[in-house]
Amino acid sequence: MLISKRRVLIEWGDCDPAGIVFYPRYFAYFDASTAHLFRTAGLEKFDLRKRYNIVGFPMVDTRASFKIPSRYGEVIEIHTCVEKFKKTSFDILHQVFKEDGQLAIECWETRVWLGEHPEKPKPRAIPDDVIALLSSANT
Amino acid sequence: MLISKRRVLIEWGDCDPAGIVFYPRYFAYFDASTAHLFRTAGLEKFDLRKRYNIVGFPMVDTRASFKIPSRYGEVIEIHTCVEKFKKTSFDILHQVFKEDGQLAIECWETRVWLGEHPEKPKPRAIPDDVIALLSSANT
Amino acid sequence: MLISKRRVLIEWGDCDPAGIVFYPRYFAYFDASTAHLFRTAGLEKFDLRKRYNIVGFPMVDTRASFKIPSRYGEVIEIHTCVEKFKKTSFDILHQVFKEDGQLAIECWETRVWLGEHPEKPKPRAIPDDVIALLSSANT
Amino acid sequence: MLISKRRVLIEWGDCDPAGIVFYPRYFAYFDASTAHLFRTAGLEKFDLRKRYNIVGFPMVDTRASFKIPSRYGEVIEIHTCVEKFKKTSFDILHQVFKEDGQLAIECWETRVWLGEHPEKPKPRAIPDDVIALLSSANT
Repeated sequence: MLISKRRVLIEWGDCDPAGIVFYPRYFAYFDASTAHLFRTAGLEKFDLRKRYNIVGFPMVDTRASFKIPSRYGEVIEIHTCVEKFKKTSFDILHQVFKEDGQLAIECWETRVWLGEHPEKPKPRAIPDDVIALLSSANT
Repeated sequence: MLISKRRVLIEWGDCDPAGIVFYPRYFAYFDASTAHLFRTAGLEKFDLRKRYNIVGFPMVDTRASFKIPSRYGEVIEIHTCVEKFKKTSFDILHQVFKEDGQLAIECWETRVWLGEHPEKPKPRAIPDDVIALLSSANT
Repeated sequence: MLISKRRVLIEWGDCDPAGIVFYPRYFAYFDASTAHLFRTAGLEKFDLRKRYNIVGFPMVDTRASFKIPSRYGEVIEIHTCVEKFKKTSFDILHQVFKEDGQLAIECWETRVWLGEHPEKPKPRAIPDDVIALLSSANT
Repeated sequence: MLISKRRVLIEWGDCDPAGIVFYPRYFAYFDASTAHLFRTAGLEKFDLRKRYNIVGFPMVDTRASFKIPSRYGEVIEIHTCVEKFKKTSFDILHQVFKEDGQLAIECWETRVWLGEHPEKPKPRAIPDDVIALLSSANT
């Protein structure tokens, strides 16, 4: 699978009075990391919506396991890949690494490929070319 | 002018490592307070857009003066009113009071009444009934 | 178990370009809901830290299942309770209900009771009176 | 004066249902840009607090003028510099440029140099070496 990586500098405003990242902010990092994975695969969110006639790929389930906290001024690296494609949904894994290489957080997402429909958006089969682009090895 | 008031409990996640509200969060409180003022006047944002054929009333200029910080667990009271109607824009004033009555923050906003237009949204004259509703005395 | 309830008005700034709540914002709502549960039980976060000599009760694991999206202007009701006390940690359940009573989201949290320690904070047994207060029936 | 520059990719979660950046998020960008300016000058926030015995340099007044909105997926460039040093405070200017070079936002900040004090933090004269580092020409 394609693994995208991005480095994130922890900002002051992402931290709470305990001095560590307020955990909901990690989910904002992860949502941006999923967008980054797609972008790395050549799939820009806005283009996707037009090209495949979808509303988007909203979150249906997410879970995060927090092992080590991070503080203002630290740089973390987030590795993101698809773990599994199912018929109309897919699972994403994010792994957060500290600068010393320790695994700080793991986060799993299940998102649904949601097509436009005159009445109400409906789950659709994920197109083969999307699967191919996200399944490619890193170059 | 109509003055709307709302009490806001300062949440943990709105505070920074110094233990005080991260100031950008105040602007989120203020945006919600402007929506609250309109709601108090019987003007719900989504209805407005349809009724008056506007895109909204986006911010063009805002300034805040921070006098006293607030901390997690405090309750502040935000008073909001229109200060002035101009032809296609209006000025809002927010005042934040601490529980002991001290004035903690003042914030000024200028927003434009932005109408739908086939090419590009355009400033429009603020409708008289909107002005009347926001100019009424508190009951 | 004690169940605390709070109503949350979905603000404009909590929603994304799809017009629905940006899901990381739900976790901010949930963190505030856990604080609200403790407050309802007479346990204010800052007092707790002094009274029990703890750093806090940080998140170690959380999962959310999103069933129905919510939009700007809606009011949701969040019900929060402890599901289970373990030796040095506890599980929280949040349920989000729409105004028509439908269950929109479920969220589970595991938090650890983290004591002060000269070298490094350490998990501690949750005090009996804390368990008693959070286990009481609603009055 | 030293001018620091940073490019910011507008994330989905920073945008509102109108599809443009929710303006309070710009202030979070600006706070990070001020930290970036100091970092560029070799002044890391946490070191500063110890080295100069200060609490920080909290915001006392900020104003932003919004000229052109930005949307999800755009990259903006934020230029930041000190405009003026006063005795115990200083003024910062942020300018946001779109990819085509157009000026989209200007933001002014006044921050106070706040020293530790046994009773209550007190404004202090800004140290000469801090002024020198932030006044240097870009290299």
